[in-house]
Amino acid sequence: MSAEQMSAEQMSADMGTIVSSPTTPSVPDTPDPALLDDLVAANRILSDHGVLDAYGHISARDPLHHQHYWISRSMPPAQVNATDIIACDLDNNPVRPGETRLFFERVIHGEIYKARPDVMAVLHDHSPSLIPFCNSDTRLRPMVGSAAFLGEGAPVFDIRTIDDEGDLNICTVAQAKGLARALGPHGLVLLRGHGAVAVGESIRQVVRRAIIAESNAKQQMQATMLGPVHFLTASEIAYAKRMQPKDPDRAWRLWKQRAMRGSGQ
Amino acid sequence: MSAEQMSAEQMSADMGTIVSSPTTPSVPDTPDPALLDDLVAANRILSDHGVLDAYGHISARDPLHHQHYWISRSMPPAQVNATDIIACDLDNNPVRPGETRLFFERVIHGEIYKARPDVMAVLHDHSPSLIPFCNSDTRLRPMVGSAAFLGEGAPVFDIRTIDDEGDLNICTVAQAKGLARALGPHGLVLLRGHGAVAVGESIRQVVRRAIIAESNAKQQMQATMLGPVHFLTASEIAYAKRMQPKDPDRAWRLWKQRAMRGSGQ
Amino acid sequence: MSAEQMSAEQMSADMGTIVSSPTTPSVPDTPDPALLDDLVAANRILSDHGVLDAYGHISARDPLHHQHYWISRSMPPAQVNATDIIACDLDNNPVRPGETRLFFERVIHGEIYKARPDVMAVLHDHSPSLIPFCNSDTRLRPMVGSAAFLGEGAPVFDIRTIDDEGDLNICTVAQAKGLARALGPHGLVLLRGHGAVAVGESIRQVVRRAIIAESNAKQQMQATMLGPVHFLTASEIAYAKRMQPKDPDRAWRLWKQRAMRGSGQ
Amino acid sequence: MSAEQMSAEQMSADMGTIVSSPTTPSVPDTPDPALLDDLVAANRILSDHGVLDAYGHISARDPLHHQHYWISRSMPPAQVNATDIIACDLDNNPVRPGETRLFFERVIHGEIYKARPDVMAVLHDHSPSLIPFCNSDTRLRPMVGSAAFLGEGAPVFDIRTIDDEGDLNICTVAQAKGLARALGPHGLVLLRGHGAVAVGESIRQVVRRAIIAESNAKQQMQATMLGPVHFLTASEIAYAKRMQPKDPDRAWRLWKQRAMRGSGQ
Repeated sequence: MSAEQMSAEQMSADMGTIVSSPTTPSVPDTPDPALLDDLVAANRILSDHGVLDAYGHISARDPLHHQHYWISRSMPPAQVNATDIIACDLDNNPVRPGETRLFFERVIHGEIYKARPDVMAVLHDHSPSLIPFCNSDTRLRPMVGSAAFLGEGAPVFDIRTIDDEGDLNICTVAQAKGLARALGPHGLVLLRGHGAVAVGESIRQVVRRAIIAESNAKQQMQATMLGPVHFLTASEIAYAKRMQPKDPDRAWRLWKQRAMRGSGQ
Repeated sequence: MSAEQMSAEQMSADMGTIVSSPTTPSVPDTPDPALLDDLVAANRILSDHGVLDAYGHISARDPLHHQHYWISRSMPPAQVNATDIIACDLDNNPVRPGETRLFFERVIHGEIYKARPDVMAVLHDHSPSLIPFCNSDTRLRPMVGSAAFLGEGAPVFDIRTIDDEGDLNICTVAQAKGLARALGPHGLVLLRGHGAVAVGESIRQVVRRAIIAESNAKQQMQATMLGPVHFLTASEIAYAKRMQPKDPDRAWRLWKQRAMRGSGQ
Repeated sequence: MSAEQMSAEQMSADMGTIVSSPTTPSVPDTPDPALLDDLVAANRILSDHGVLDAYGHISARDPLHHQHYWISRSMPPAQVNATDIIACDLDNNPVRPGETRLFFERVIHGEIYKARPDVMAVLHDHSPSLIPFCNSDTRLRPMVGSAAFLGEGAPVFDIRTIDDEGDLNICTVAQAKGLARALGPHGLVLLRGHGAVAVGESIRQVVRRAIIAESNAKQQMQATMLGPVHFLTASEIAYAKRMQPKDPDRAWRLWKQRAMRGSGQ
Repeated sequence: MSAEQMSAEQMSADMGTIVSSPTTPSVPDTPDPALLDDLVAANRILSDHGVLDAYGHISARDPLHHQHYWISRSMPPAQVNATDIIACDLDNNPVRPGETRLFFERVIHGEIYKARPDVMAVLHDHSPSLIPFCNSDTRLRPMVGSAAFLGEGAPVFDIRTIDDEGDLNICTVAQAKGLARALGPHGLVLLRGHGAVAVGESIRQVVRRAIIAESNAKQQMQATMLGPVHFLTASEIAYAKRMQPKDPDRAWRLWKQRAMRGSGQ
């Protein structure tokens, strides 16, 4: 909920931008069925795991139209259905005119897709166990092999490097560009006093990273109580980056089955 | 449950006061339907989130009769229905004669409404993660933007500043006045060895504050394990106070839907 | 499960004692219906709260026959029904001949009823958050008013003061007498490497104490992370001991309703 | 999920080995019904307790054919049914030709059965509270009598003692032999940056050990916050090893009833 405050002035300015934005007719009205299915499932799975609550959002770049991404309307992720998914261009303008129920922080998605051509999915969340690392000098580092994407430690973006006064939400292009710079080539960036952004080559990879980041954070905090922590070594991190996961969809299928059970919760 | 002990003497004295109290006919028998609906939902949502258990209570000032507030009869919040909501005046006397199933600590509500004309809703709870901060010199401080209402740290009320010997419940006007003084202009005050009181301009804001305070407390305790904690800055706190929340009802609707599902639990 | 190991030799010796024990015909076949109902509910409530798992047991002294107590047969508390409740004398022999499904540690109950005429109910549990305090020099102390029964700190019984070699279960009269001595006039005693015993003037008070002890332990551990902890003062502890609880049955009714919902789980 | 990465090269090499492996006709197509029932229940119980998630596996040595063991096909343990159980020889080759849905880390099972003739069941898991101890110099030690099998501290296997570069999964015979050596005569070994392996004389004992290890780890971490921890003494550990558990199936029956309720989850 930390992304929930903006001035009335900002709000109408933003709305104005949306209404007057150019649309791109070449993007279809609905995404590829498989991508649509994964995007809905991702919203539900992340809610089921407590990574998303009433706020936060996940998007997927269109595989055929790289200048567009798919995202739900502004709503609780736990309630997202296929008909709630809309297309935006990389300036975060909705393709279909008249769409007004939009996430204000969607600027995060467009700027990261611009900065990272390899990225096919973006998630912004307030995952509870990540918050302590957002506000600490202790880096979030990999405890287990599946968390190797955290590398030598997740970077932390401090919005004060862009605006010295303001709330902590990513509402402007300048802020989102700063965030994308802090992300750099990483798979996850933490936002001081706010939450996290995870990226990846697919919706499923981003979901996996977000769920692993949450459990890794818990385990790292617990390990800290026991004394010095032994993280993955540099060679283990490097090795993991060269490899493909063996059977990642085993978790996806289980998570999806559980999350869709309470369908329409 | 820390508010559950009083001498038999106190008990009958209190009861006596209630029976002989003057009532105000101008207050309607039931509150505005929207307020009533929110007040019932608030009881259920706070129970669903573990902020309230068998004890604790939330009230709302009547928007047309500022000298009265609405609160449930003495009962577990998880079981409150619309017919359980009654009116009290600011001396905490029930409007309808003969009401005897009343919270003993309701004196908290009247005294805070007297001291804080801006306050439209009051909650007293024993939210589990707040208790450690009630008994510590470490202040509860905002980890994320949505917790900016905690300011530079929530104040702690020590009942010994009023009564040197006694239990820790707020049973007398003097104690409640002391509590209201400790609250001052804040949105939340902690009670040593007891719990918390949250206030706000609406039922929904108070519910939001209570739920955020609970998660913020957990995250602050975890962050403490990692080393020095970076809280919101003074300018971020100030900025947040000037702003309106963007879409606070998104969380309310989700919380209500989930809480009312187990209706009559 | 820490009470689950004994030599085959001990086992048959114990069984032999049971079979040859004198019974007392004056005790009825079933307890008072209200007590029976509370004892079944207590088993379910404590399981529902995680205070009891597959092991542990709660008993109630018969209000008319003080030399006898009621307890379930050896079984998971979550599955106890009225027909599972049997009577034992204070030497822990079942009143009805032929009963063989008995808790081995029931000797705890008899010895405490002998040593403490004021005690009407006894619980032995392995409540998860109490275990750290069983194995620490840090005393479990009251964080809130409802935990005042913990006084200046719960005593810890070390079975090595009785037997230098052995497992950690209370299987002999000597061990149970040692435990009763360590309990002294307190409401709760911790057992090193094992669990806890709570006592009280009624089943409901013992259930309340056990549930409060568990949450108090969690909160005290959390508070320890924040720095020095301010516990209840001596005068607050003394005051609480002189008082009757105001509305303790409000919690009991809510807990019972929730626990019996999954009846026969 | 930390065991989920291998190169395509390794993958096909492994597959090749499987297809060409000799099978043993003397092993029946399905295991003894009681063993089969316990193995399915074990998968469900461990999932229900969070010891297993989408990954991890438990096997049982055939009581009549000691050179073979039973294990599920590669799938989430929560979804295992009787028809998913297959036989492998101790070189981890499936008895029935054509089986290809196999756990890549099953080499753990064969090598431990070879090294430990007393072992009748093997579990590999990523139990969440064990991970901090995998990456720490603080040993996991018994807090309560039922955890006495942890002895003076669970050993930790560091895969770097076998391969200096690689991921953290146990994919080769050399790695599995190294793991078996680190396990030695113990009941549980931790794997740095990865998880744990528990062994025992029966499926039920292994399940018990895994569930107790998880809760013991939580309690040891909490106790560490309170100051120096008093673990079981050497004589208590020795005593526990000589004894048979009194009523271990009481927990098994309760766990099974709860886990099978959500059957086919």
